[in-house]
Amino acid sequence: MNKQFVNELADIKTDFAQWYTDVILKTDMVDYGPVKGTMVIKPYGYAVWENIQHYLDKEFKKRGVQNAYFPLLIPESYLKKESEHVEGFAPEVAVVTYAGGEELSEKLIIRPTSETIICEMYAKWIKSYRDLPMVMNQWCNVMRWEKTTRPFLRTSEFLWQEGHTVQASNEDAKKDAQEMLKVYSDCLRNLMAIPTLTGRKTEKEKFAGAVETYSLEAVMKDGKCLQAGTTHNLGQNFAKASNIRFLNKNGDLEYGYSTSWGVSTRLIGALVMVHGDERGLRMPPNIAPIQAVIVPIANHKPGVNEKCQEVYNKLNKAEIRVKFDNSDNTPGWKFNEYEMKGVPVRLEIGPRDIENNVLTAVRRDTHEKVQINLDNVVSELNDLMHIIQDNMLKQAEENLKTAIVETDDFDELVKAVNDGKVVLSYHCGNNECEEAIKQKTTIKTRVIHSYNEAHKCIYCDKSSKYRIYFGKQY
Amino acid sequence: MNKQFVNELADIKTDFAQWYTDVILKTDMVDYGPVKGTMVIKPYGYAVWENIQHYLDKEFKKRGVQNAYFPLLIPESYLKKESEHVEGFAPEVAVVTYAGGEELSEKLIIRPTSETIICEMYAKWIKSYRDLPMVMNQWCNVMRWEKTTRPFLRTSEFLWQEGHTVQASNEDAKKDAQEMLKVYSDCLRNLMAIPTLTGRKTEKEKFAGAVETYSLEAVMKDGKCLQAGTTHNLGQNFAKASNIRFLNKNGDLEYGYSTSWGVSTRLIGALVMVHGDERGLRMPPNIAPIQAVIVPIANHKPGVNEKCQEVYNKLNKAEIRVKFDNSDNTPGWKFNEYEMKGVPVRLEIGPRDIENNVLTAVRRDTHEKVQINLDNVVSELNDLMHIIQDNMLKQAEENLKTAIVETDDFDELVKAVNDGKVVLSYHCGNNECEEAIKQKTTIKTRVIHSYNEAHKCIYCDKSSKYRIYFGKQY
Repeated sequence: MNKQFVNELADIKTDFAQWYTDVILKTDMVDYGPVKGTMVIKPYGYAVWENIQHYLDKEFKKRGVQNAYFPLLIPESYLKKESEHVEGFAPEVAVVTYAGGEELSEKLIIRPTSETIICEMYAKWIKSYRDLPMVMNQWCNVMRWEKTTRPFLRTSEFLWQEGHTVQASNEDAKKDAQEMLKVYSDCLRNLMAIPTLTGRKTEKEKFAGAVETYSLEAVMKDGKCLQAGTTHNLGQNFAKASNIRFLNKNGDLEYGYSTSWGVSTRLIGALVMVHGDERGLRMPPNIAPIQAVIVPIANHKPGVNEKCQEVYNKLNKAEIRVKFDNSDNTPGWKFNEYEMKGVPVRLEIGPRDIENNVLTAVRRDTHEKVQINLDNVVSELNDLMHIIQDNMLKQAEENLKTAIVETDDFDELVKAVNDGKVVLSYHCGNNECEEAIKQKTTIKTRVIHSYNEAHKCIYCDKSSKYRIYFGKQY
Repeated sequence: MNKQFVNELADIKTDFAQWYTDVILKTDMVDYGPVKGTMVIKPYGYAVWENIQHYLDKEFKKRGVQNAYFPLLIPESYLKKESEHVEGFAPEVAVVTYAGGEELSEKLIIRPTSETIICEMYAKWIKSYRDLPMVMNQWCNVMRWEKTTRPFLRTSEFLWQEGHTVQASNEDAKKDAQEMLKVYSDCLRNLMAIPTLTGRKTEKEKFAGAVETYSLEAVMKDGKCLQAGTTHNLGQNFAKASNIRFLNKNGDLEYGYSTSWGVSTRLIGALVMVHGDERGLRMPPNIAPIQAVIVPIANHKPGVNEKCQEVYNKLNKAEIRVKFDNSDNTPGWKFNEYEMKGVPVRLEIGPRDIENNVLTAVRRDTHEKVQINLDNVVSELNDLMHIIQDNMLKQAEENLKTAIVETDDFDELVKAVNDGKVVLSYHCGNNECEEAIKQKTTIKTRVIHSYNEAHKCIYCDKSSKYRIYFGKQY
């Protein structure tokens, strides 16, 4: 390992936060925007988002979800229609007061999320049970004001998708919320090689205005949890606030049952913090913007560049996301660059390889070298990428398993969480008890593991309501 | 033709504006948003936009364009850096003055376009000629305040893509602007079956801050032009304003040469107004959200629904965008519905068709009926869609040709434009002369046809600079 290169990044073990910032900036995933709290998503970061979009959009459409686009600006009065919702979001909205050279008669807020405006439109469109379910999604930007910036993790503006459904019954709304949670956790597992803890949030931690919120939590390498996506069963709360009523099959007017669900560019942060190592990013092949990079060795020798180009063409034609770096940087510089960028496979081609009709493939996940016959390069590289994808998921699963500690002792819980663990224990389900834990230790509940009344609450000694994960979070 | 259904729409010949509004609302492409000037793009309209995105994104990537995402909010001071730019846009921006519960120290504007913020970032990223060209694009929302709303054509918020390049020379910047104009006109022609007039805009009509602006103009059925996309060679104007400098090959610091180019959801309006007829929309197959709809005839008869489903499965598997409407509406209702929605092919399947192992395909463009053998349904439908696509382009080309009138007489020009024509004539290229024409008649120049100094200006009698199109516009 070349110290000179590695030292560009802070030490992942002793300063994880700085390592994260170093990695995302130095790999050209992101930069800070001019206004505090904002980020610029650069092409290498945006390509990750595009791969997430591509995967999810296909899964949505398979399930009959239709994309649409609702306005950015929401009349301030809309936000106030659902009382819990306005409490949750009012403190962090950005407000437009002037437009077209004039002061506006009603202030407009930049959407922090779109339940209020979408439900207002749904109320206009939904008349009868025949109009249900109504199932739309939008890919868009949202804004929740922040004074500090942690790119991808916490920024004023971020990109996301927000799905919104209205069903004719609470059961169907609940089913939507649960099914989308599954779609998200499959996306993280299959595309990003990230295993998650999934389940309901507590009453205290649920979304402002929801009946129940489900979340998927990924555990980062420092043991902190990252809420990677949420789905909400909103019951009739927003339907009542916006007057979404439909004629049911009996001819009676009934309020609809709505849901919403979203994932955001936070997922890019999760990808970095679940898989990265001391050398930089590690991208699972399924989501990697560059799946393989071809590095010529001794490319002044005749035939080397030509062979590289030939291999590039083959792989490119087979729809492998391949890059051929024929710049005049040294091979050593290129090795370091693409390791830091987390490219899953490096393909080295030099004069001796060409003589033997092979190339040398170097895995980013294990640093192992594999010789591949040039005649079978497409199929062997595809096989290798499958192996890497599986291995990275396995590693992440082991990390997740190692991060979880079970205890019934509160002091142990606090110590474990502060040591970078996620704790699985029992809780009474009482808001005040949960708040007391947070006040005392800053530790919050993550998601409910299972309902279980046979134990005692880890904090207040009342009888338990559920097993639940505790941890620190991004 | 069933009068009862057709009368739902205003008459396209006598009230084109109302016809447009009727069509886009009744086909569920769009709805009005709650704030004046805003629209909600509904799934049937958004699907058109997705098809445009899909086509263009692929063309961009073939040319090395990388997608990125820049912040929505731009510090007010940035807008002021390029003097013509601020003059052009300041009157129509929406301004955020409060955020996170506090008044902001600097006002932030919602991007009307992103040259200023993107160039600011480019200035940070570009150091040497090795960093050039820099070629990025973003798909995003922008805002230019409007008090009236014409969905897709004129709304405060709309969706678009904006590409921004920096090159090391003016020639390369000019080439970018011209190449992207070609990409756009190919997209309109190949995907949307819309022929366009392409060329430079005059000094007077160019983009605020550009050295030269190129435009593609589509001619609607009422003879008005619609600026369907623009590309700008910005020269060093924005590079100087944002201090984008690079070390050139001689080791000297030089300002970069930038371009920008964009198309927006306006294109959906063009699609409606180029192809629509008295019955509603007509979608060219390549862009149609639904390419073919299966309507069962006498579907209470045994086997009809099953056969329809079988055909649906076959077509769906062949990636034809097909819908099977097995709702309990009457066939007549369905015929009208999908004609209004402009679905290019209706596939009728009834008991007699099944006996003969055929279906009846009805073309939206000509109303012709064609029998298709069920064994070859995929290939025959694909062939038919090619024919329809070609025919719709041919019809649109004929309409365009008919709309253009050549004259050297100014009174004739005015009369022709007011009669719904586009006039090709000669102009001196003088700003004041062009302004005088506009003041007197509201008629503007569209794009330069060719440079030609051998004639006289149609208005002022000075010698001509170019042949140019005049017309009214959306």
